[in-house]
Amino acid sequence: MTANPSLEELPLRPELKGEEPYGAPQLDVPVRLNVNENPYPPSPALIDDIAAAIRDAAAGMNRYPERDALALRRDLAAFLGHGLTAENIWAANGSNEVMTHVLGAFGGPGRSALTFAPSYSMYPEYARNTHTEWLTVPRKADFSLDVDLALRSMAELRPDVVLVASPNNPTGTKATLDQLRALCAAAPGVIVIDEAYAEFARPGTPSALELLPAFPRLAVSRTMSKAFAFAGGRLGYLAAAPAFVDALRIVRLPYHLSAVTQAVARVALAHAPEMLKQVDALRDERDSLQDWLSGTGLRVPPSDANFILFGRFTDRHRVFERLLDRGVLIRETGPAGWLRVSVGTPEENAAFRDALTEILPDSERLTDE
Amino acid sequence: MTANPSLEELPLRPELKGEEPYGAPQLDVPVRLNVNENPYPPSPALIDDIAAAIRDAAAGMNRYPERDALALRRDLAAFLGHGLTAENIWAANGSNEVMTHVLGAFGGPGRSALTFAPSYSMYPEYARNTHTEWLTVPRKADFSLDVDLALRSMAELRPDVVLVASPNNPTGTKATLDQLRALCAAAPGVIVIDEAYAEFARPGTPSALELLPAFPRLAVSRTMSKAFAFAGGRLGYLAAAPAFVDALRIVRLPYHLSAVTQAVARVALAHAPEMLKQVDALRDERDSLQDWLSGTGLRVPPSDANFILFGRFTDRHRVFERLLDRGVLIRETGPAGWLRVSVGTPEENAAFRDALTEILPDSERLTDE
Repeated sequence: MTANPSLEELPLRPELKGEEPYGAPQLDVPVRLNVNENPYPPSPALIDDIAAAIRDAAAGMNRYPERDALALRRDLAAFLGHGLTAENIWAANGSNEVMTHVLGAFGGPGRSALTFAPSYSMYPEYARNTHTEWLTVPRKADFSLDVDLALRSMAELRPDVVLVASPNNPTGTKATLDQLRALCAAAPGVIVIDEAYAEFARPGTPSALELLPAFPRLAVSRTMSKAFAFAGGRLGYLAAAPAFVDALRIVRLPYHLSAVTQAVARVALAHAPEMLKQVDALRDERDSLQDWLSGTGLRVPPSDANFILFGRFTDRHRVFERLLDRGVLIRETGPAGWLRVSVGTPEENAAFRDALTEILPDSERLTDE
Repeated sequence: MTANPSLEELPLRPELKGEEPYGAPQLDVPVRLNVNENPYPPSPALIDDIAAAIRDAAAGMNRYPERDALALRRDLAAFLGHGLTAENIWAANGSNEVMTHVLGAFGGPGRSALTFAPSYSMYPEYARNTHTEWLTVPRKADFSLDVDLALRSMAELRPDVVLVASPNNPTGTKATLDQLRALCAAAPGVIVIDEAYAEFARPGTPSALELLPAFPRLAVSRTMSKAFAFAGGRLGYLAAAPAFVDALRIVRLPYHLSAVTQAVARVALAHAPEMLKQVDALRDERDSLQDWLSGTGLRVPPSDANFILFGRFTDRHRVFERLLDRGVLIRETGPAGWLRVSVGTPEENAAFRDALTEILPDSERLTDE
């Protein structure tokens, strides 16, 4: 039993009044293609290895975890390659905690962060939570980076942190290494290239990790949620210069990564070849779903991620609802008129295609200029 | 490979310059009595149950975790009793994340938080990370709350958040329910009573949970790190009015609690009777260690926690080092001259007593006024 005040009666910070907790609806429907999860559950062999590792971790559960998570960071460095070592890696409970650490160290009150819109809808939440001024500059109409505008904006706005998602969420589009190099060279403070979906990029796509030797204020962030099918395990990480990582260590909460998280993530990393084979399959599925969507006459920006943006609809909410009526949950996100679908199993993608085929004939489309 | 700037060359926030990452030394010595861990590892039965639960959780690891952790919060409410339900509970990766959520919602730039010193050394870090002004008011010389001074200070300073640890860390001393009631009645904003060590309090000690029906801006925080021997699992929580919890949900990062953390914490909670039996044993050990320390002529504030403060030494660092030389790691914390020892197993406590017995004769003590 507690007293029962309303939220209005509590002294919530003014800028939080009326805000809702962030998150897509978690609905129990047959086909969930809304949050860019990997549709493939862990293999029995991986589950066995996780259970074995947990027995070891649990045996020492009365002790605080290894605070610097060095073994995990070593494994993450080895996975990334590029001559990286544990000292180059920072890890936390999801990329969202990693990004919060970056903004805590380099953003914050009196400082600003800039991104190129439309981009990941969590970014402004990180800025709000860390009291960092939030700035956006538009992308081109095809969602590619407008590098000239980006450079002019950086010179004028002097953002302390620049966030660039490539492949970008929710558009799926990637930047070229030359474009990213130009942004790194011009960023007045630190710059984070968010490669959450890098493993899904088309073969031959270089990683921004290649730029790390040239840019001391660059970090490249990744996640295990997508390629490693580890969304439930919550492990995001980044690669940067050791001093960049040292800065993040100052603002992290001690023991932020539990012994269980560290152990389970290491097991998943040890299964990287198996996971990356699934990524190959998902990439193929992505390509055929993209071709199919284009074939319907919808606009479909080229995707290098495990999701596809498509549109544009006069009433995207109605399309979303009608898909949901048919057991297919996708995401209403991105600019007006667009919808985003995650790439699922062949069966899930077929269910999505069938449902969309049913409703497309009477779903009014926006005509583009 | 990365560029290799120094930390000074990176645009770190000015108030973080020269700061060190928080945390006690993690040394591999035979007797670790430094961070108030529970010395008893999980039982084989508990490890079996954890491994089984992990198999279930791992099978869905490709999906994001249940964002509101409702099943876990229901279990935590049931453990606390007092008519609490899931809506009254908030949980995060350790109390330190819970407290950061509280300061994020109710503290922050332009706001202040107050505690009664000496108290938990992490509190000012939470304030720094959330840009909350940090205020302290001293306790009495015996480390009990100076309620008159507290009330006057609250009236004058108008803190937005008041943090009161009871039992207090590092002193071990607890406040009475009447004292806490007086603070709750006078707190101008929200007040958190931190009961991280409540389960170790002497029998008959009432919990501040009893005050929840009367005070809508009160939260009572707990942790599974200590009584549940779950420091490696990272699970802190609090009980408050549902609207208080709603405020914290706004500032939390989505999916902050992994599927694994939720599953493993629920298993540990299901073993509560076994864990609380160990707490009884630790309480007895605490009482005899406390009696022994008093018997040596040292000053020992009465402890209701699983650690004991003792002193005072002219050179506490030397005492710390000489204990460490003998394989016993304790903590240099609290006001000058004091040291803190966690209560371990009977063997660990005996090793501490033996080591201290050796060095006490030539450890100079401060004479108190």
